[in-house]
Amino acid sequence: VFTVPEQSPGPAGDFPLKASVPVTSVELVAQSSRYGSLWPLPQKVQLSDVSFKLTTSSFRIVDAKESSAGPSCKHLTFLNFSCHCVIFSTSTFVLWATSFEGNECDAFRDQPTRDKQHSPSLSVPVQPFAVLKAPKVWGALHGLETFSQLVYKDEFGTKNINQTTISDFPRFAHRGILLDSSRHFLPIKVILANLETMAMNKFNVFHWHIVDDQSFPYLSRTFPQLSQKGAYHPYTHVYTPADVKMVIEFARLRGIRVVPEYDTPGHTQSWGKGQADLLTPCYAGSKPSGAFGPVNPILNTTYDFMTQFFKEISTVFPDAYIHLGGDEVDFTCWKSNPDIQKFMEQQGFGQDYSKLESFYIQKLLNIVSTTNKGYMIWQEVFDNGVKLKPDTVVHVWIGGATDEEMHKVTGAGYTTILSAPWYLDYISYGQDWQKYYKVEPLSFNGTEEQKKLVIGGEACLWGEYVDATNLTPRLWPRASAVAERLWSAKDVTDISDAFNRLSAHRCRMVERDIPAEPLFSSYCPHEYKGV
Amino acid sequence: VFTVPEQSPGPAGDFPLKASVPVTSVELVAQSSRYGSLWPLPQKVQLSDVSFKLTTSSFRIVDAKESSAGPSCKHLTFLNFSCHCVIFSTSTFVLWATSFEGNECDAFRDQPTRDKQHSPSLSVPVQPFAVLKAPKVWGALHGLETFSQLVYKDEFGTKNINQTTISDFPRFAHRGILLDSSRHFLPIKVILANLETMAMNKFNVFHWHIVDDQSFPYLSRTFPQLSQKGAYHPYTHVYTPADVKMVIEFARLRGIRVVPEYDTPGHTQSWGKGQADLLTPCYAGSKPSGAFGPVNPILNTTYDFMTQFFKEISTVFPDAYIHLGGDEVDFTCWKSNPDIQKFMEQQGFGQDYSKLESFYIQKLLNIVSTTNKGYMIWQEVFDNGVKLKPDTVVHVWIGGATDEEMHKVTGAGYTTILSAPWYLDYISYGQDWQKYYKVEPLSFNGTEEQKKLVIGGEACLWGEYVDATNLTPRLWPRASAVAERLWSAKDVTDISDAFNRLSAHRCRMVERDIPAEPLFSSYCPHEYKGV
Repeated sequence: VFTVPEQSPGPAGDFPLKASVPVTSVELVAQSSRYGSLWPLPQKVQLSDVSFKLTTSSFRIVDAKESSAGPSCKHLTFLNFSCHCVIFSTSTFVLWATSFEGNECDAFRDQPTRDKQHSPSLSVPVQPFAVLKAPKVWGALHGLETFSQLVYKDEFGTKNINQTTISDFPRFAHRGILLDSSRHFLPIKVILANLETMAMNKFNVFHWHIVDDQSFPYLSRTFPQLSQKGAYHPYTHVYTPADVKMVIEFARLRGIRVVPEYDTPGHTQSWGKGQADLLTPCYAGSKPSGAFGPVNPILNTTYDFMTQFFKEISTVFPDAYIHLGGDEVDFTCWKSNPDIQKFMEQQGFGQDYSKLESFYIQKLLNIVSTTNKGYMIWQEVFDNGVKLKPDTVVHVWIGGATDEEMHKVTGAGYTTILSAPWYLDYISYGQDWQKYYKVEPLSFNGTEEQKKLVIGGEACLWGEYVDATNLTPRLWPRASAVAERLWSAKDVTDISDAFNRLSAHRCRMVERDIPAEPLFSSYCPHEYKGV
Repeated sequence: VFTVPEQSPGPAGDFPLKASVPVTSVELVAQSSRYGSLWPLPQKVQLSDVSFKLTTSSFRIVDAKESSAGPSCKHLTFLNFSCHCVIFSTSTFVLWATSFEGNECDAFRDQPTRDKQHSPSLSVPVQPFAVLKAPKVWGALHGLETFSQLVYKDEFGTKNINQTTISDFPRFAHRGILLDSSRHFLPIKVILANLETMAMNKFNVFHWHIVDDQSFPYLSRTFPQLSQKGAYHPYTHVYTPADVKMVIEFARLRGIRVVPEYDTPGHTQSWGKGQADLLTPCYAGSKPSGAFGPVNPILNTTYDFMTQFFKEISTVFPDAYIHLGGDEVDFTCWKSNPDIQKFMEQQGFGQDYSKLESFYIQKLLNIVSTTNKGYMIWQEVFDNGVKLKPDTVVHVWIGGATDEEMHKVTGAGYTTILSAPWYLDYISYGQDWQKYYKVEPLSFNGTEEQKKLVIGGEACLWGEYVDATNLTPRLWPRASAVAERLWSAKDVTDISDAFNRLSAHRCRMVERDIPAEPLFSSYCPHEYKGV
C-alpha cells in the first residue's frame, strides 16, 4: 500500500469552471468536487480541511531512512520535475519517499510488469512532511502524480495542499491505450506526448499497433525492405531502431509497458511490398489477378520469415508480451488460389477456411513461444478454437455480444482484456466520455474465478481519421474516463462528481501543454497555448 | 475578371497520398486530380503540360504598366510573403499584377465588401511571365492564393508551375465561417490562425459570435462592467479594443469582413451580470426567483442601453453589417413576470409572446438603423413577422424544412444566407465533409429572382465542445467543403475528384502549420509539427 496527501475541496476560486452538464435544460455550473481534481480517484481518500502553503524555494523529495531505494536513486527526483512540472516547494515541506522493495535502484532498472499491483499510499500527516510509501518504484510514480493532483491554488494564487491520507491501488493491472501508426504515421513527438498524458492518467500499457495494411513504418534490421517498400515514405515516415528505443525508454520511465502488435495473417498488405511471396496471390479465374490476400499459410518460407522476424521483435521490445493480432481475416483471396485449394484438400480442411487460419496461427504461436514471450491475440483466434498457451491474453473487441464473449473466454480459463466498449475512434456529438465511464467490465455472467481473469482493458484509437493534427485532443479526456474505470473502485460511478473532477483534470492536462478537449462550455484558468 | 496560371496534373511523386475513399471494401489510393491541388476549383481552368521550373532567387511580383495600383502599393508583395509562405522564384519568372480599379492603393485601404464579386483572372501564358488581372485588390489576393496552389514539387523536389489560364469569380458573394467565443474563450492566436486558413479557402466573412449566455468576453469601452462581470475571467478571457482591432485588420488584409454578432433578446445571460435591470427577473409564484430571462423589453432603460451599446459597436466594427441574432427566445421567464403580463395586456398582445419578442426586435432594429449599419438576423425574426428593412439579410439555420424557409424568405424579397446544412459542431464518424459538399444552396423552389437573393452561406462551428485545443482540426478541412460549394460553379460536384484535390489541399494547410485533420488513411509529405 501507499498513501498520498489528500485534497480538500478547493476554494471557489480554484477551478471555477462555468461548465454545464446538459442533463436538464438549465445549465449547471460545474462544482468543485469534494475530491478536488483527483483523477483517477484513489481507492481510499481521507480528507481534512487543514491546509499547508507551499512555496517554490525549498521543496525536496528525500528517501526515507527505511527506504531500500538508497541515496543514489535520483530517478524519482528527476522524473518528478521533468514529467509533471507541477511539484512545488515550501520552506519546510518535504515529500518523504519510502519503502521500495529491492536494492538501491534495481527496481527502477526493471521493466514495468503487469503481475503485481502497485499499491501506493501517501499521507500529509503533519506539517512539514508528506510520506509516500510504495512497494515498487512504479507505485511511487503513481503516488507522485497523485501528490501533484493534491496541490491547488487558492484565490491569491498561492499553492496549497491539505492534510490528507490516501491508500491506493489499481482495480485492474492492465490499463492500456492502443494507438495505430499505420493508417497514419504518428511522429515520435506525438507518441511521447501521449505517453506523458497516459502517465498523468495512470495508464500503464501502450499497445502500439505499429503496422497494418496501409503502411509498415517499423524499420526492421533483419528485413529493412519491409519499411523501405511498405512505409508511406522510406525515410520520413519510419520508426528507426533508435526511435523505437526512445519510445520504450520514455514509456518505462513513466511506468508504462510497450506491447507492440504485429497483426497477421490479415491486415498485412503493406508487408507484401517488401517481402516477396509472403502474401497469398489472389486469382481471377485461372490466372493471378495481381492482387494479394492474407499471409500465405502454405509455404515454408512464410514460417522461416516469421521465425526470423519475431526473433528480432522479441529482442527489440523488452515487454514479456507481444500482440499477434489475428483479427478480421478475409478468406476471399485464399478461396481463389488453386494452390491453397489443393492444400486445403490435402489437410482435410474441406471448405472451412477458419481451419486454415488456425493452422497458420498455431504455427505462429509455436514460433513466438520459442522466444519466451507471452502473447496477446484478438478474440477471433480464441473463437476459432486455436490451441493457446494457458497464459495467453485474449483481447475482446467485438461489440454486440461482448458479455457473452467475456463469459466464454474466462470460462475457458484465459486471461482477458476488454476493448469492445472503448473504441474511441468512433465519435459522436456530445459528452460520449459518460458512455465510456459507465461501462462495468465485470458485468458479464461468471464465477469469481472468471472475473479474476479479467486483468483490465484498453481504449483503442484506430487511425483512419486521426494523425498528428487531431489525435491528442480526440483521445483526451475521453480516454481519461476509461482510466478511472480501470483504476478506481467499482462503486466510483457518480457521473456528476466525475464531471467535476474530470473538468479540473482536463484543465490540468491543458496547463501541462496537452491539448485535451473540453467536456462542455467552460474555461480553464490557463488555456491551451497552441492552435 | 482575373486569370491564374493553372496546374497540370502533378507527377505521381507530387501528392502521393495513399488515402482511400471507403466507397467499396477495396481501398482506393487517392489519385492526382487533373486539377492538381486547386481548392476551391476556379470557374474556368485551361490546362497545359508545358511546365516551368521555379527557383527561389529571383521571383518578383511587379505591377503592370496598365495597373492603377502604382509603385507605392507594396501591400500585395507584403501579403504574398507574409501570409502564404509559398510564393516562389525563378531566375526569370515574374508575376505581373495588373489592372486594379482606383488610384494607387486606395482600394486596399478600403474594407472588403460583399457587393461586387471579385473576378480575378490569372495566366502563365509564356515564360517568364504570369499575369494576374483583377478589378479589385481583393480579387488579386484570391488570385495570389490560386497562384500558390499551382506550384507543385516534382520528384526531385524542384518547384514547378505549368502553363495555365484561369478565369475566376465566386459563385456566391458571402462565404462565411461562424466562430463562437462565448461557450469557450478563443485566444486571439486561434482566431488569427483560422482567419489565415479562411483566406487559403477563399472565405471572405468572419461571423464572430462573440458573446452569448455563457460569457461576455467583449470589453466594451462604454460598458466595461459587461466583461468585468460577464467574462469567464475579467482580464485573461476578454477581447480588448486592441485585440478586436487586430482581428479586424488581420482579416481585412486577407480580404475578410468581420461581422460581429450581438445576439438579443435571448442568449444574454452573461449580459445581465454587468448590467443591472437589463434582463427580465423571473418569478416563482408571486416572488422573483433570483433567475433572469431574456432582455427586459418593457423598460425604457433597456433601449437607452441598446442605443449606447450599438453606437459603440457600429464604430468599433467597420463592416456595413451587424448580426443581431434574435434566435431561440424562451418565453417561460417572460410569462412568469407580472410586470410583463401587465404590459402584454396594455399592448393587446394577448398570450402571444412572439408579439412581445417582435416588439423588442422592432425597436432594436430601429436603433441599429440610426447607426447606418445594415443588419443580419436569424430566421426566427423573419418568421415572427417583424418589419425588416429591405436590405436585411436573413440567416437560415433551422434544419428539417430549410428549402421551404429559403422559398419563403426569398419570396418575401429578402436577401438570404444559408447555414442549416453546415453546422460543423455536429460531428460523426467518417467523411462527413462529403455531406457538406453535396449541399446545393439553390435547390429550393423559387424564381430566378428569388435565387439571386441567396448571396451565400456560412459554416457554423458553435462552441460548446471546441476551444483552442481542438477547434482548428475540427474546422478544417470540413469547412473547405463548404468553401468550394460557395465559390465554384454549380456543376462542380465530382466527389471523387474533390476527394483527390481536397486531400492535397489539406496537406498544403498542414504544411502551412495548420492542423487540418485527415480525410482518411493517408499521409502528407510534411506532417504536422505540433501535437
